[in-house]
Amino acid sequence: MEYALSNRMKDVSGSAIRELFELLKDPEIISFAGGWPTTETLPAKQVESIVKDVVCKYGTTQVLQYESSRGKPLLLERLKHFLKESKGLTMADENLVVISGGQQGIEYMCKLFVNEGDTVLVQDPTYLSTLQIVATYQGKSVGVKADANGLDLVDLEEKIKKHKPKMLYVVPTFSNPTGGTYSVENRKGIAEITAKHGVLVLEDDPYSQICYDGEHVPPIKTFDKTGNVFYMASFSKIIAPSLRVAVIAGAAEIMGRFIIAKQSSDVCNSSISQLIVAEFLQGDVLKKHIETIIPVYKEKRDKMLDCIKKYVPSDFVYDVPKGGMFIWGYFKSNRDVMADFKEILKSKVAMLPGTHFYADGGGKNTMRLNFSNASLEQIETGIKILGDYFTHRPAQQG
Amino acid sequence: MEYALSNRMKDVSGSAIRELFELLKDPEIISFAGGWPTTETLPAKQVESIVKDVVCKYGTTQVLQYESSRGKPLLLERLKHFLKESKGLTMADENLVVISGGQQGIEYMCKLFVNEGDTVLVQDPTYLSTLQIVATYQGKSVGVKADANGLDLVDLEEKIKKHKPKMLYVVPTFSNPTGGTYSVENRKGIAEITAKHGVLVLEDDPYSQICYDGEHVPPIKTFDKTGNVFYMASFSKIIAPSLRVAVIAGAAEIMGRFIIAKQSSDVCNSSISQLIVAEFLQGDVLKKHIETIIPVYKEKRDKMLDCIKKYVPSDFVYDVPKGGMFIWGYFKSNRDVMADFKEILKSKVAMLPGTHFYADGGGKNTMRLNFSNASLEQIETGIKILGDYFTHRPAQQG
Repeated sequence: MEYALSNRMKDVSGSAIRELFELLKDPEIISFAGGWPTTETLPAKQVESIVKDVVCKYGTTQVLQYESSRGKPLLLERLKHFLKESKGLTMADENLVVISGGQQGIEYMCKLFVNEGDTVLVQDPTYLSTLQIVATYQGKSVGVKADANGLDLVDLEEKIKKHKPKMLYVVPTFSNPTGGTYSVENRKGIAEITAKHGVLVLEDDPYSQICYDGEHVPPIKTFDKTGNVFYMASFSKIIAPSLRVAVIAGAAEIMGRFIIAKQSSDVCNSSISQLIVAEFLQGDVLKKHIETIIPVYKEKRDKMLDCIKKYVPSDFVYDVPKGGMFIWGYFKSNRDVMADFKEILKSKVAMLPGTHFYADGGGKNTMRLNFSNASLEQIETGIKILGDYFTHRPAQQG
Repeated sequence: MEYALSNRMKDVSGSAIRELFELLKDPEIISFAGGWPTTETLPAKQVESIVKDVVCKYGTTQVLQYESSRGKPLLLERLKHFLKESKGLTMADENLVVISGGQQGIEYMCKLFVNEGDTVLVQDPTYLSTLQIVATYQGKSVGVKADANGLDLVDLEEKIKKHKPKMLYVVPTFSNPTGGTYSVENRKGIAEITAKHGVLVLEDDPYSQICYDGEHVPPIKTFDKTGNVFYMASFSKIIAPSLRVAVIAGAAEIMGRFIIAKQSSDVCNSSISQLIVAEFLQGDVLKKHIETIIPVYKEKRDKMLDCIKKYVPSDFVYDVPKGGMFIWGYFKSNRDVMADFKEILKSKVAMLPGTHFYADGGGKNTMRLNFSNASLEQIETGIKILGDYFTHRPAQQG
């Protein structure tokens, strides 16, 4: 039969990440394209030890019955402590909802606030799935300029005045895709300007604890005086993606509405996943685990930086990320990196053309390299192949 | 600040079920209100045995890494076998998506197909969360008349012609809330009429395997000739709700779009949950487990039927459900059961006023009683209190 898709979904295609997940299945490809943690950092032994006697320890009801849509009381209790200790955020139960990954938070915030034609401001470039989610609610993503210190506050305010956006979405610490971190002053400025104009902020923070050389920078949420900032922390990168556990924190009034969105969707999170995260948040289990994964990622980052210096022509300009999982840069020569992507893939190496991360489709000469999921040997081999390609292939444009 | 909720969400309030979840937390209340499996039927030992060595058996990547949005290949393989053996449905991988509970399937199908003002036809009465989900996409739920054999096919076709609906949502086997089952002829009729008019059918089947006296009736999907029927099976009631695992099966073209909706939301299901379900689907593990829970529920159903006969005045007219978890009926005397609900709650007994299940708010004299979650003693005590109330309190109306 002829299917009549809704207006919101008929023009939405699969994300670039989706195609890349398919590519990652070929074990011969060296991929710097995704954003996966490396399997060696996933805490298999601890998870096994936690789940081994999970029913015995918590009882059948806690492990197998329906759970509150807000989240398990035990997990909420420990999340409050975690948010206070690690992020400086004082939250009550009614400010929190446990979600099935940070992406679900973006989805529900868009469902709650974005009408057809509404604008969502994002950093240019930003997390590409956010662009897709906004599109599925017929919203319009508009990019705000950014530099090494954070958002361009003049551009932010101008775009607020021009577009009257519902929301600003940012990943202010070790950002995806740029790896950059907003300064404290920049965060204060964002909080002030958005509060002044009554614009919501969705602050997505999956990476801040994967910190190599950076100092702790407080969340934008800590500068929130009017209740317009909503903060999300995720355990996908610091424990394991498959648990699908993250948390959103914000004004109780909106979290009450947010729960209605969750009730109308997946009802509640997996209880076993919630209990695993709760155990990691007890005492210093998570802290110690993070201390073991940081050297692994730092070594990979440093290896990739070395290899870029060694093999990739200086036409590629990039920043050194102080945390997170990505190296981001651009080619001075104005290349079409999407065309390069296809060529390089023939040599079984994958990177990610940066254009997908731009709200307006710009950034054709940008590239994101993920260093968290490849081995040191793969980084050496893969970046050499990349470097050889860029050394010998002239720019397609300009 | 003043929050400007989207048009789709600003008028949506929490579900009646939500208030009831709150009530269920008071251990003194005997509740026939929810739809929870009883904890004694939840397979704690098997789950413990499966998760005990889950990492050792499957490896870190399978247990902790990101998973395909469609679902784990191992689970998909076993789901195909399950759907073939238990439901008579022959499906390929591209026809399936693993979802975080059947409710997520309703949500995504609405997101994919329902524009503002579109109609979704439902049985009158129907699962109340569906009414809420349709409302969150600014759709309109319209009830179709039903009797003991299924939908009134004349009314169905008239309402299709009148409302040009995008979708028909039904729970055709041991329905929530009525406990009724559509006949084979009725299912064929639904498949034919909807195919003729190009209306999608979302067939929700969480209860069919909890069968006491009924015979196996094939899904509507088995009569689907044009690809307009989408079928969902859930493991919440037959394994455990907390796993959040269900499956949707339908035309590959639409399942490809459905995956985009999932990618934009919770990305993928919990891997541990998927592996637990996969283990239950190996050999006859699930079949044997279901054989152990059926006598437990049948005894509860029979007990409740006995108690209703003994204590509740014959003003209450009800059907004997052949499976599932609910007894449904109406009062000949045209009562306002919502008012009764509040009175009865003072005696620490909760039932569910049926009006919440009607698309148009009718059915004020109807009541749903859940027998799966209370003990035999609670059923005796609770139904006696209910019966005393209805014996001594005159109808508020008529």
